[in-house]
Amino acid sequence: MSKKLPTEPYKGVRDFYPEDQALLNYILATWRSTAERFGYVEYNASILEPSELYKAKGVENEEIVNEQTYTFIDRGQREVTLRPEMTPTVARMVAGKRRELGYPLRWYSVPNCFRYERPQRGRLREFWQFNADIFGSNSLWADAEIVQLAYEIVLAFGGTDKDFVIKLGSRVELNRIATQLGLNEEQKKKFLGLLDRRAKVDPQEFSTALREFGASEGLLYGTPPQNVQQLIEKLRELGITNAQYDPSIVRGFAYYTDIMFEVFDTHPDNNRALMGGGRYDNLTQLFDEEPLPGVGFAIGDATMRDFMEVRGLLKKYVPATKLYIALVDASLVPAALELAAQLRAQGVNTAVDFGERKLGEQIKAAAKQGTPYLLVVGQDELASGTFAVRNMESGTEEKMSRQKLAEFFLNL
Amino acid sequence: MSKKLPTEPYKGVRDFYPEDQALLNYILATWRSTAERFGYVEYNASILEPSELYKAKGVENEEIVNEQTYTFIDRGQREVTLRPEMTPTVARMVAGKRRELGYPLRWYSVPNCFRYERPQRGRLREFWQFNADIFGSNSLWADAEIVQLAYEIVLAFGGTDKDFVIKLGSRVELNRIATQLGLNEEQKKKFLGLLDRRAKVDPQEFSTALREFGASEGLLYGTPPQNVQQLIEKLRELGITNAQYDPSIVRGFAYYTDIMFEVFDTHPDNNRALMGGGRYDNLTQLFDEEPLPGVGFAIGDATMRDFMEVRGLLKKYVPATKLYIALVDASLVPAALELAAQLRAQGVNTAVDFGERKLGEQIKAAAKQGTPYLLVVGQDELASGTFAVRNMESGTEEKMSRQKLAEFFLNL
Repeated sequence: MSKKLPTEPYKGVRDFYPEDQALLNYILATWRSTAERFGYVEYNASILEPSELYKAKGVENEEIVNEQTYTFIDRGQREVTLRPEMTPTVARMVAGKRRELGYPLRWYSVPNCFRYERPQRGRLREFWQFNADIFGSNSLWADAEIVQLAYEIVLAFGGTDKDFVIKLGSRVELNRIATQLGLNEEQKKKFLGLLDRRAKVDPQEFSTALREFGASEGLLYGTPPQNVQQLIEKLRELGITNAQYDPSIVRGFAYYTDIMFEVFDTHPDNNRALMGGGRYDNLTQLFDEEPLPGVGFAIGDATMRDFMEVRGLLKKYVPATKLYIALVDASLVPAALELAAQLRAQGVNTAVDFGERKLGEQIKAAAKQGTPYLLVVGQDELASGTFAVRNMESGTEEKMSRQKLAEFFLNL
Repeated sequence: MSKKLPTEPYKGVRDFYPEDQALLNYILATWRSTAERFGYVEYNASILEPSELYKAKGVENEEIVNEQTYTFIDRGQREVTLRPEMTPTVARMVAGKRRELGYPLRWYSVPNCFRYERPQRGRLREFWQFNADIFGSNSLWADAEIVQLAYEIVLAFGGTDKDFVIKLGSRVELNRIATQLGLNEEQKKKFLGLLDRRAKVDPQEFSTALREFGASEGLLYGTPPQNVQQLIEKLRELGITNAQYDPSIVRGFAYYTDIMFEVFDTHPDNNRALMGGGRYDNLTQLFDEEPLPGVGFAIGDATMRDFMEVRGLLKKYVPATKLYIALVDASLVPAALELAAQLRAQGVNTAVDFGERKLGEQIKAAAKQGTPYLLVVGQDELASGTFAVRNMESGTEEKMSRQKLAEFFLNL
């Protein structure tokens, strides 16, 4: 027993101590409630997927599949992958019950996904991701709703429309430009890669590189495609004025077929894509002959957290436990448990110390746990039926009868 | 594009369509709220763990580690395992912040875990599991609280104390008996295996097999160990009368050190362990020199579901979406969205059809989705400001003004 195991988690993933879990739960709950307000219902699947799901033509993101998936052979010789994203899974599930589902179908999910990336700010090997999709609608209003949902989510976290900008791109337009330039598949891939890096490249360098493809800023930044213009108008009708056309929105996934978008944080310390998505009209055809249009987007938990952090929107951790009962003596456990049972029955989340340490140590334990209130059970308190409730942050105490305790906590 | 991909999930795991996800969410929420009532706070970790965590002496369950883990080598040549259970992880995390945490520490988690088992009723390759643990207490009251929490969870799902029995075993007593019988490690393992299978073996066969170890029912079923008797008394003080000593409670994990327990469903169609746990006092010493006692238990989602099913406790699925707005004509989308925005702002989860299909088809879609209420937006409704809200289950309609709509839904 001399060699001790390390307490660190596996490289690039996180432990969620209660403070971290509370923040993750807040992020998930805010995603969920906003999506449900718009009529989306939750689904999920296993993180284990047959590897072929990510190799199919039309699904693949070459970088992710070749370099970033967690793929292995199971004990039954099946090749299995930890999902790197949710879109192929949702297409599989929708195709599997295609005729039983009603359209337009609004589904959301909050899966954890896995990518073997170099760990860095906002990029982790396991991350939680909000996904929302509409299946079965060709209406541009479906695209507008998906963008609106993205917009409303930022607002639900306390952001304002000055904090972000919605950049709309077009896969159709990119394909048209590539054809006009006479690019082959290999050249087109490099061309799109250049556009994707645009924000990170010096403008002069970018111009030079464009010219190597026979392109120019003028070719790219001409009139927006008609449906992008219409979408911007629809978004204005919905009160959303921070959307604009940006031909450098490329998105990494091969499955997008039309309008794509990314939401950029405008804060100078966090100038990056917060979320992204678009229309993918052929994905369920990997499973099923009949076409079924789709449009959706995703957000990661780490970028959402960074957005909150740079704007001071992170709240102080408060545990679910409201009250810690400390004991003058271990013989008082039954009396403390009786009091706790009464409070719990009335909805007050209550922890009871077992009196194995001195009172001062018990109070220190409650402070370490961040429990907001504490009371001490001793012979005097039990005899008088009056308890002093201590606010652990301010240190002030308020005396009250046993009968008033629950009311005090429920009115906080 | 001719060869189609299958729509089935990976073998032995589940897709969570909205109905399944709603049930899982109900199970998770019931676990969470019961644990929080007793002062437990939530933590979690990644499903990816260094494989060495499960190979350490004192952690290992040989069957699980050798035959049932998902273990593979990552792209950086690290051996990694999808967690088959949560206890080694929580011990790692507690050891990692040992001095910052306050004791007794009450933690719970609702992780998904992975075991490569033959899929069967209640056994899946990915399952969700509730885990609750108390660290830092040697008090038998801690054991009592853990059993009480297990008891309260069954009640929170609508069970009664006639529906289950709590069987208490003792690792100390099993070790004492094995020593008394003069069994070596190999024989002891077989002896414990026999006890573990007791409920599944013919009583006559069981007696014969016991005699081969020099044991008898009398040796096993003597007076319960003193601390088990005391625990049964403490549970009675807490109003729990369905706990009893059972020397055949063995538990598969090597880390238990004292009292262990399993909760058995008493329903003839589901006569199996619902949950189990016990005291493990040396686990954090894998990471840290200082000892830290622990006691805890776990429940799986599939067994919880089976418990609910055999007792008719499963509820009908009702989606989070309250209202579906159908349109007479696609040109009415903006008017419908304005109505939806008003309702959403007042807390009514509302989906809007984009009017691409005939009205009848839109109503069928709402029915397939299980949305409980529907209203139709047409020129007449917009002109009069009066809408007929249809109860999709009964088919009845109620007419009301635009102003009354939100009130109607919030009072449901």
